Amino acid sequence: MDRFERLQMKITFVLFDGYTALDFIGGYEVLARLPGATANFAALETGIVASDTRRLGVVAYQKLEDITEPGILFIPGGPGARVALQNRQLLEEIRRLHKTSDWTVGVCNGVELLGKAGLLEGVTVTTNYFSRDDVTGYGANVVPERFTADGKIVTGAGVSASIDTAFFLAAKIAGESTSRALQLGIEYYPAPPFPDTKAVDEAPDFIKQIIGAFEDSDAERAMLAQPTPF
Amino acid sequence: MDRFERLQMKITFVLFDGYTALDFIGGYEVLARLPGATANFAALETGIVASDTRRLGVVAYQKLEDITEPGILFIPGGPGARVALQNRQLLEEIRRLHKTSDWTVGVCNGVELLGKAGLLEGVTVTTNYFSRDDVTGYGANVVPERFTADGKIVTGAGVSASIDTAFFLAAKIAGESTSRALQLGIEYYPAPPFPDTKAVDEAPDFIKQIIGAFEDSDAERAMLAQPTPF
Repeated sequence: MDRFERLQMKITFVLFDGYTALDFIGGYEVLARLPGATANFAALETGIVASDTRRLGVVAYQKLEDITEPGILFIPGGPGARVALQNRQLLEEIRRLHKTSDWTVGVCNGVELLGKAGLLEGVTVTTNYFSRDDVTGYGANVVPERFTADGKIVTGAGVSASIDTAFFLAAKIAGESTSRALQLGIEYYPAPPFPDTKAVDEAPDFIKQIIGAFEDSDAERAMLAQPTPF
Repeated sequence: MDRFERLQMKITFVLFDGYTALDFIGGYEVLARLPGATANFAALETGIVASDTRRLGVVAYQKLEDITEPGILFIPGGPGARVALQNRQLLEEIRRLHKTSDWTVGVCNGVELLGKAGLLEGVTVTTNYFSRDDVTGYGANVVPERFTADGKIVTGAGVSASIDTAFFLAAKIAGESTSRALQLGIEYYPAPPFPDTKAVDEAPDFIKQIIGAFEDSDAERAMLAQPTPF
């Protein structure tokens, strides 16, 4: 570790019922490995928080209201983000924590939470394909990028984009060499078996409709209505 | 969902203290989205299982000994896998569950657990860069691939390779079209900010030494000795 500057960076991952796990685990696996960084998992209430599939439970051990130094404030998305958009207390905490964050990160439709919290007026962001219109509605300038930054607000596209976004942010925080070393450490030289499957933008319309059906609010509600095993 | 065959596939993610989260969350985010699939998180004992960083806790709600139909048996790696290699009960459960699994998946040094359990004699596998010699020692034929399959044993390289490996397996299970649709669904068109950073194989020696230092057993022991906040 002597080879790296120790950064003492805190990272606050915000959990809510029905998150999509890779939205933040991708970011966690990169950012928590920054030398000296400490990852924390927080929610409005402490306890086990269930993912969108209802089958994964992650422990939130900090209450958002108790956090005064968020460091990197990291907001994932997921079907549950649509419900969370109606949660005034959560939005208020995001707004409060953003005031003192070093960086505020939104991935996928977690970017909508930043928008609803009033943080994106005139800010250039990206988000997942199906959230672009909604995020634009919050006054943001949405660009169809994998990741982007505007001041301390760093945003990523859908789900797996959390990994690329985190390496982008890691380079801003600790330099390109460290980010490259972390990329080697988690062997991130992605090789999708179907590399010609690109962004949803480029998919035929009937494929967009199939994918969109999974993001439909009724389908999401049915998913979130299933019981958890914990 | 009518457009897809419902597969009724179970997936058993095996947790142990000190796992690396992305090793299985990458696979989970893909495979749990197979139509009709059900993900389960299991360990020798039920309860919260801590990651290598000690900051992430995931709930194991099934005891391995209670599982009779594992479906896809999915073994992650991590610094804790080195400790788990000494756990006879865990190795016995992996051996038992492999007998009736539809598929057995190992990622990163989780492949060493399959080897120690005696499942890899003469089997062609891949694993992370630093585990190749150890896995070869269990009689496996190690190939430096991102993912590979030999019969029902599917293996992946380090950490982030779990995503590519899962899409590869998803195509075997449900066909290429479904795997491609899932790839679009989690917006998996990876775009690393430093795309010229490839596999560790291609890195200069001094970089291999830096990365290797993090995988050193003393460094791993120090990491796992830190307390968890839950």
